[in-house]
Amino acid sequence: MVKIGIIGATGYTGLELLRVLARHPLAEIAWLTSENSAGQRFGDVFAVAPFIGDTILVKSADADLAAADVVFCCLPHATAQGPVAAARRAGARVVDLSADYRIHDAAAYETWYGHPHNEPAWLAEAVYGLPELHRAEIKATQLVANPGCYATSVILGLAPLARAGWLGGAVIADSKSGVSGAGRGLSLKTHFVEANENMSPYSIGRAHRHLVEIEQELHLLNQGPNGQAPFELIFSPHLLPVSRGILSTLYITLPSGTGEAEVRAAYEEAYANEPFIHLLKAGQVATLAHVVHTNFCALGLTSVPGICTMIVTSAIDNLIKGASGQAVQNMNIMLGLDEKVGLL
Amino acid sequence: MVKIGIIGATGYTGLELLRVLARHPLAEIAWLTSENSAGQRFGDVFAVAPFIGDTILVKSADADLAAADVVFCCLPHATAQGPVAAARRAGARVVDLSADYRIHDAAAYETWYGHPHNEPAWLAEAVYGLPELHRAEIKATQLVANPGCYATSVILGLAPLARAGWLGGAVIADSKSGVSGAGRGLSLKTHFVEANENMSPYSIGRAHRHLVEIEQELHLLNQGPNGQAPFELIFSPHLLPVSRGILSTLYITLPSGTGEAEVRAAYEEAYANEPFIHLLKAGQVATLAHVVHTNFCALGLTSVPGICTMIVTSAIDNLIKGASGQAVQNMNIMLGLDEKVGLL
Amino acid sequence: MVKIGIIGATGYTGLELLRVLARHPLAEIAWLTSENSAGQRFGDVFAVAPFIGDTILVKSADADLAAADVVFCCLPHATAQGPVAAARRAGARVVDLSADYRIHDAAAYETWYGHPHNEPAWLAEAVYGLPELHRAEIKATQLVANPGCYATSVILGLAPLARAGWLGGAVIADSKSGVSGAGRGLSLKTHFVEANENMSPYSIGRAHRHLVEIEQELHLLNQGPNGQAPFELIFSPHLLPVSRGILSTLYITLPSGTGEAEVRAAYEEAYANEPFIHLLKAGQVATLAHVVHTNFCALGLTSVPGICTMIVTSAIDNLIKGASGQAVQNMNIMLGLDEKVGLL
Amino acid sequence: MVKIGIIGATGYTGLELLRVLARHPLAEIAWLTSENSAGQRFGDVFAVAPFIGDTILVKSADADLAAADVVFCCLPHATAQGPVAAARRAGARVVDLSADYRIHDAAAYETWYGHPHNEPAWLAEAVYGLPELHRAEIKATQLVANPGCYATSVILGLAPLARAGWLGGAVIADSKSGVSGAGRGLSLKTHFVEANENMSPYSIGRAHRHLVEIEQELHLLNQGPNGQAPFELIFSPHLLPVSRGILSTLYITLPSGTGEAEVRAAYEEAYANEPFIHLLKAGQVATLAHVVHTNFCALGLTSVPGICTMIVTSAIDNLIKGASGQAVQNMNIMLGLDEKVGLL
Repeated sequence: MVKIGIIGATGYTGLELLRVLARHPLAEIAWLTSENSAGQRFGDVFAVAPFIGDTILVKSADADLAAADVVFCCLPHATAQGPVAAARRAGARVVDLSADYRIHDAAAYETWYGHPHNEPAWLAEAVYGLPELHRAEIKATQLVANPGCYATSVILGLAPLARAGWLGGAVIADSKSGVSGAGRGLSLKTHFVEANENMSPYSIGRAHRHLVEIEQELHLLNQGPNGQAPFELIFSPHLLPVSRGILSTLYITLPSGTGEAEVRAAYEEAYANEPFIHLLKAGQVATLAHVVHTNFCALGLTSVPGICTMIVTSAIDNLIKGASGQAVQNMNIMLGLDEKVGLL
Repeated sequence: MVKIGIIGATGYTGLELLRVLARHPLAEIAWLTSENSAGQRFGDVFAVAPFIGDTILVKSADADLAAADVVFCCLPHATAQGPVAAARRAGARVVDLSADYRIHDAAAYETWYGHPHNEPAWLAEAVYGLPELHRAEIKATQLVANPGCYATSVILGLAPLARAGWLGGAVIADSKSGVSGAGRGLSLKTHFVEANENMSPYSIGRAHRHLVEIEQELHLLNQGPNGQAPFELIFSPHLLPVSRGILSTLYITLPSGTGEAEVRAAYEEAYANEPFIHLLKAGQVATLAHVVHTNFCALGLTSVPGICTMIVTSAIDNLIKGASGQAVQNMNIMLGLDEKVGLL
Repeated sequence: MVKIGIIGATGYTGLELLRVLARHPLAEIAWLTSENSAGQRFGDVFAVAPFIGDTILVKSADADLAAADVVFCCLPHATAQGPVAAARRAGARVVDLSADYRIHDAAAYETWYGHPHNEPAWLAEAVYGLPELHRAEIKATQLVANPGCYATSVILGLAPLARAGWLGGAVIADSKSGVSGAGRGLSLKTHFVEANENMSPYSIGRAHRHLVEIEQELHLLNQGPNGQAPFELIFSPHLLPVSRGILSTLYITLPSGTGEAEVRAAYEEAYANEPFIHLLKAGQVATLAHVVHTNFCALGLTSVPGICTMIVTSAIDNLIKGASGQAVQNMNIMLGLDEKVGLL
Repeated sequence: MVKIGIIGATGYTGLELLRVLARHPLAEIAWLTSENSAGQRFGDVFAVAPFIGDTILVKSADADLAAADVVFCCLPHATAQGPVAAARRAGARVVDLSADYRIHDAAAYETWYGHPHNEPAWLAEAVYGLPELHRAEIKATQLVANPGCYATSVILGLAPLARAGWLGGAVIADSKSGVSGAGRGLSLKTHFVEANENMSPYSIGRAHRHLVEIEQELHLLNQGPNGQAPFELIFSPHLLPVSRGILSTLYITLPSGTGEAEVRAAYEEAYANEPFIHLLKAGQVATLAHVVHTNFCALGLTSVPGICTMIVTSAIDNLIKGASGQAVQNMNIMLGLDEKVGLL
């Protein structure tokens, strides 16, 4: 059995991790931490089924790091740096669900997140945990930085185009996310009456922090002759009145002469053996219904007749493929298990 | 023109008051108070149309009480006692939307609300503002205690039976309320992800504070031979994943031999001239769709064949007939205006 | 492996069966039928993950009944009588999710459903598939009539009281169901705009067909001295604007002197070893969040101080414990497997 | 008083017209038609307040066209051609809410709608009823073609840029609409369980029929040197799980050197005196909460630093500014009334 520790278990990603791991035949919960709810049962914090809810929460200072084979860290960015490093020093494999180890360039991290990175040595070890791009590196590392939810939907939707060198000019990602993406903390924007029957753009243009990890990954795939990315990403998140799911509608101006068949072939080749990519047939578009409560990313390809514009629709469950499911997928890869265990 | 002041304008009842008053041809906003948002435009606090949003909020200490003909107080219970008294001393007519002046018996108020009533003289002046029961007294007073939202739906649903002396044994009110009833303050139960796709009973049995005003009003109508109410009310609120509306499903065991026709006649007589009671035809049940965004209370009467049980379905918009619409209806009555002005 | 056939697979219960069975290590889909969509992939009918969606639908006339060890019948009532009998004649074990084999008394079936029962021999074989009441009989039969969704929530909520002989007078079940309970057929009441932000009672009192199976089961447990049930059930369904889940709020007048501790002891004894009953602690109430996407029934017990009234809150996922999950639980029992396989 | 007839009153636009007209001090309902519900009260078709619901529906053959000063036609496209012509022949002013009279070029109409236009003479009389562009022509005509809901949100969001000649290259409109936009007819995509907790793109690229009216209007404002429009519109509708509201997120590549201040000045000039345009302050984005249940269009302007991209967020209530409110606004203009009567 694989012994699991979860740091910061009482948010939505912690809850979803427990649900996924309950179906994983090799996973065994060693401990769950919560600073605010230590001493309570998990089921006192969330209304959940008893087989998930009966674990007692402990303070992180009381968690026996050495007793865990794999530690998932579900803390907010900035606060995850230290606990991840501590878990690594204790010898555990770590999947960090925060942004703290995603950005390879510590200066860029500081610019976007507003505080320095204090663990540069561990940062150097971290692999960006998108299996479709970095499976071999994930297998070889002991520290995975689990991608952001928006970033997962956008990168998976654009990667085959980036690899082919077909991204250019303004690339537009109009993304719509369910409210669980904003976390379980209290704020007016997540108050039921404010979000329900509403639809709100926020941080549109080039203002949202996921932009930096999206560009890091796409630029690795799509460098211009001088090493500069030949495209500009415009990324517009919207708060959608559903509990879970992200739909990204992606608009790309293809190089003149690039046809639909070529584009489809690039996606088919890129994702032929990917267990969690659902490439839809011609004429279909991705919807949240394709993916919620699963670890799949559904991708639809729509070309616009008479214009060199391709529209890619990309849908994931933000809590599963966008967070906890992908984290378990990464764990499976690190441990050499079948990547799909617990995830179907 | 009637000059209006609103104390505590930045909650959902304040917003709804402004919407209703914008359609009232005689109402003119004199001032709006907010301790937390003073200095901002109302439209910076809520995303609303400019003709509502352009008023600047002031601290209550800066509100010119004497400049208002009518003051609406939208503060939470306990905190409304003093401001209501101050507005009355300044000579304004007052409609208080909190619970502070609803309970005639100061001891009962203290028992249920956990703190004493410090303004007994003004409490003695207050009239419980349910026009269908107390229209003449409302017209004669200068201080109206606007009823609670649940209380409005339950009392209007049961009053004709109470008046006829037909309530007995356990009377059950199973009530379902939209989330705006919980206010705009932040709490986990009103977080979108917690409330959405959920349904939660709370304070069921005899635990919710609206019980005391419901019983006060029904007992006035239905006293047993020794002055005691001959029935016991069981009141079960549920949080419903909609923004607005209350549906109360009421179960009453009628005295043996009381037939459906008699019951319907009692409702028809009670509500024949009521402008905001929508008594549905036989075979119909009340739904939220009948009433949201209106000041109406829809009532359906369903008798159960072979059993002396009557089921009354009672629906209101909790923010309108359950709060701000009824408050304006009370203002109209106090001022001798047509009760419907601004409310159709 | 257990070979599975599903008759009428393209409704919500068929979809949910496929989701549950995809996690069942011993289940293998043999065939799925659909009269309207034969020839299409399941994934062309529902937006779903490819590992569920790739099966081709066939007409029921083309289904090889003999190739299935277990047949689930997901047809509407009346239309299931014949296909269930045919599957039994072909030797398959059958779980019928319609109402056709639930009512032991063919005359009562005809009265409530408006047409005769044409398969009285198979009806005699059928066991009402509520494992918490009939586990031994389910194990011994080859034909299970899977309970109705409302019925499951109400019977599980009342059974311990019925067995103790504590049901009397008017027992009230105020039930709220998500819209998937109404099926995938088109009707104005399930149109998004009609159901959203609404709450509608329907068939309240003694008008809904689930009443007959609820009473059948409770009367078996709670017969008065003359064989008559000593209580009257009032059952009020409401359409709730969520996709899935049923919450039943149950009101029972206990015999004088019956205390809360005794009642709790009765539930603890009844459900001590039940893998899918989640008896909540004192002070807790059941909510949809406890159960959606699981096979659990959550039960909360609330006594009303000073009155002999007990309020039981009972929550299930209507598509899982109320339909497809319970159907697989029944299959597991029939086959002698661990009842929980595929359901955690 | 203005006597009003409504043809095809029992859809969502008919209901909304009745709500708006109930607040219009000069409007009086003369007749309402419905082929399917003739003989019933309007309140038997919709659960609504009695003062709206008490009108009896008649078949259109029984409607006295000559008794109406203004006729609103709420039929689907294709079926409105004849009734609109008949009402005009009878001398009534007409506002047609279908697409039948919006497209000036009958050949383009036939291409996009799949059937010919049979009333070319009346088509020549029709004015496209967007007051912000065509107020003077609306005032002078007796036949207004009320714009489409998506079209209203997109045209109002782009018109100042078009007029300045700043639209070029690919202009992207990513639009999200509530479900009432799909009408009250039954279809799987509007089934509650299919739409709820979902988000679905449809007809994306250059496939949706509103494209033709959007381009007609923008091209009038923004012609290139050779009379050709110098831009290509990509229009992607999405079905959003709310009852009402449209949010369009519009992406425009500005001519190099065009700054944010210039753009804002163009909007301020265009909409300075418009009673129903709510131009938001710098830093704000339009949301549905700004506009639902009002006749306003809220517009937010966001420039993207370092790129010549402007993002315009445009929100309307699809049933009011996108249909029935705008229809009454047009009626007011035609009749020489204050344009805002009944609409605040």
